[in-house]
Amino acid sequence: MPLSPLAPAAFPDLPVIDGVTFAAAQAGVKYKNRTDVMLAVLAPGSTVTGVFTRSATRSAPVLDCQAKLGPDTGPAAILVNSGNSNAFTGKAGLESVAAITQAVAAATGIDAARVFTASTGVIGEPLPHDRIVAKIDDLKAAQSATAMTDAARAIMTTDTFPKGSTQTVTIDGKPVQIAGIAKGSGMIAPDMATMLVYIFTDAQIAYQPLQDMLGRLADKTFNNITVDSDTSTSDSLMLAATGTSGVDVTGNASFEDALHTVMLDLAHQVVRDGEGATKFVTIAVTGAETDADARLVAMATANSPLVKTAIAGEDPNWGRIVMAVGKSGAAADRDKLTIKLGDMVLAENGWRAPSYSEEAAAAHMKGQNIDINVDLGLGDGAATVWTCDLTHEYITINADYRS
Amino acid sequence: MPLSPLAPAAFPDLPVIDGVTFAAAQAGVKYKNRTDVMLAVLAPGSTVTGVFTRSATRSAPVLDCQAKLGPDTGPAAILVNSGNSNAFTGKAGLESVAAITQAVAAATGIDAARVFTASTGVIGEPLPHDRIVAKIDDLKAAQSATAMTDAARAIMTTDTFPKGSTQTVTIDGKPVQIAGIAKGSGMIAPDMATMLVYIFTDAQIAYQPLQDMLGRLADKTFNNITVDSDTSTSDSLMLAATGTSGVDVTGNASFEDALHTVMLDLAHQVVRDGEGATKFVTIAVTGAETDADARLVAMATANSPLVKTAIAGEDPNWGRIVMAVGKSGAAADRDKLTIKLGDMVLAENGWRAPSYSEEAAAAHMKGQNIDINVDLGLGDGAATVWTCDLTHEYITINADYRS
Repeated sequence: MPLSPLAPAAFPDLPVIDGVTFAAAQAGVKYKNRTDVMLAVLAPGSTVTGVFTRSATRSAPVLDCQAKLGPDTGPAAILVNSGNSNAFTGKAGLESVAAITQAVAAATGIDAARVFTASTGVIGEPLPHDRIVAKIDDLKAAQSATAMTDAARAIMTTDTFPKGSTQTVTIDGKPVQIAGIAKGSGMIAPDMATMLVYIFTDAQIAYQPLQDMLGRLADKTFNNITVDSDTSTSDSLMLAATGTSGVDVTGNASFEDALHTVMLDLAHQVVRDGEGATKFVTIAVTGAETDADARLVAMATANSPLVKTAIAGEDPNWGRIVMAVGKSGAAADRDKLTIKLGDMVLAENGWRAPSYSEEAAAAHMKGQNIDINVDLGLGDGAATVWTCDLTHEYITINADYRS
Repeated sequence: MPLSPLAPAAFPDLPVIDGVTFAAAQAGVKYKNRTDVMLAVLAPGSTVTGVFTRSATRSAPVLDCQAKLGPDTGPAAILVNSGNSNAFTGKAGLESVAAITQAVAAATGIDAARVFTASTGVIGEPLPHDRIVAKIDDLKAAQSATAMTDAARAIMTTDTFPKGSTQTVTIDGKPVQIAGIAKGSGMIAPDMATMLVYIFTDAQIAYQPLQDMLGRLADKTFNNITVDSDTSTSDSLMLAATGTSGVDVTGNASFEDALHTVMLDLAHQVVRDGEGATKFVTIAVTGAETDADARLVAMATANSPLVKTAIAGEDPNWGRIVMAVGKSGAAADRDKLTIKLGDMVLAENGWRAPSYSEEAAAAHMKGQNIDINVDLGLGDGAATVWTCDLTHEYITINADYRS
């Protein structure tokens, strides 16, 4: 698959997070000649938090992780495979999770109740977990503090680039590191936790405040992106704090800001690798009666196939944005609506703006970053979501994903 | 545009409905070398009912029609243009409606309060109503009881075939005729009335019972189809009963059945002309806790880009149906779910059915009619929706619709 035209110039230089090591291996779950399993090992003292898909048909690994989250700070491990999602696999799915977590426990000495897993790929096929179990000793032996990039590559499916992000924040004169990786390209939609995202920090913080912070920031980042409106059965966002910096970040706004930056960057990278994407689209809605209404309008616009295909065609067909506002279910008054493309007012007071220029609008549409602002003129509710266009390549990728 | 592969073999032979006449003309609103405006004239004694889009940004003609509906049975007229939807056109939009309805009133002697209009096409551009007004005398002069097919052609936009349907029902030994036409291909989604549909009958029935029947049947037909999840600003479904048969159909089940058949046929034809469609897909959901939950699951499946692209690729990737059930918001239990393709059980009891055959599933997917049944195993709630696949042609049609 060719690299997404929206890919960042380079993968970032991820710092070592003291207390975490990584390794990747080729288990041959489905893909050939590439890594497809990664193991991260967390030192004693680590807090592990997570947010997961709200799908009613969530995968076996998601169910297992949700049951295991808690305030324990013993050593922990995270194992992720690509190529098979172990979703809708019934009792066999839970048996696969048990086989893998017990094998990791045996190889590392970590309590199986602190071994978290995730699987991503096709839904409904039994996971050949023996292939993964057979690699666990190798994964244990290869653990390295500098291998987070290898882990980012091993969890890719239809992704065209690995996704990483990092921030350093200085608190009380001491540096605190945050670094994360993500995968995600299709079956990306909100009302969930996210795709697969793993973030690590050497900050010191207890389970509940970190879990609360993660949920709060997920709602501002991963829950506000969409590629195709389809919510995955496997979405998992995990954040581990090793505490090795010795810096307590409980209630620290600078830390939360830095974590927000990393999460937003990873969320944007997922959109930038949206299947078939050629445009990065920001939809900001203001002036709604409530924030919830603003989000309804933003998501109705971001998920509209007609809006997304117009963007793909570089056609400033803003009438389709009016359509999306109308169908969203949010309170809206045609005559108070203002629609902007970048700084240009396209429509206001219930019709096309007198200053509208088709040429200027078409010029904005030719860019790689499309900025749509919808002001409903009713109140203070606001929301911003990010999406990509809908192109032929999306159809090509998904019309025969399994073969 | 090539004819949809799902088009009916032929346009039906529509009967004359005593009390209604039609004509079509080339007004040049946007299209060249084709008709783009139709006028239907209804004799005194006609009951006119309608159901319209629930969009918050509905078009000027929709607002005007909604204000005019009522128990009056004086003569009436319906004028429809294609090429411009007169939606999001502010005060100028209402002025265009007034200019057109007054011109029809002047030419026909019908009260302007009984002249209904609709417009379909691009959103947000002023309607050049003078071009339509200039054709009204011609349309009046050309009125013919046998020109309903011409009317069906004049209201097409991206449609690849005109849509018509008819039924005759015998009540008390007397025949009652029903005949209707429709347009619709993209921007087709539920939670609305429908696209543009005009149905005529010579039955005799008062406004309120006919309006109630129309709403009831719209919920079983046009509100259960979707092409692309995008709800139009202009959807209008109108039903006029001229009473000329002298047969009172108030509360008559045979009449309601026949009308249901016509409406379902027209709704299916809209799906069969879905932009880029190559497969006609029926999604029947049973065993839900409520009918509303069943509809949530059916619509989540029908609107999923991943389900629709898998169908386009003839790939029996039923894991995506599991995903759609999971994201739908309906109550669902993975281990009670059964998914069938035609008569084949694909999945049951939380995983792939032991009898699953990839070859048999692939063979069903190669057909033109795809039948998906999802049983949730929880209750008696049921719903059926109809949709089409999502193909390259949809992208091609919509990436540059305006040029």
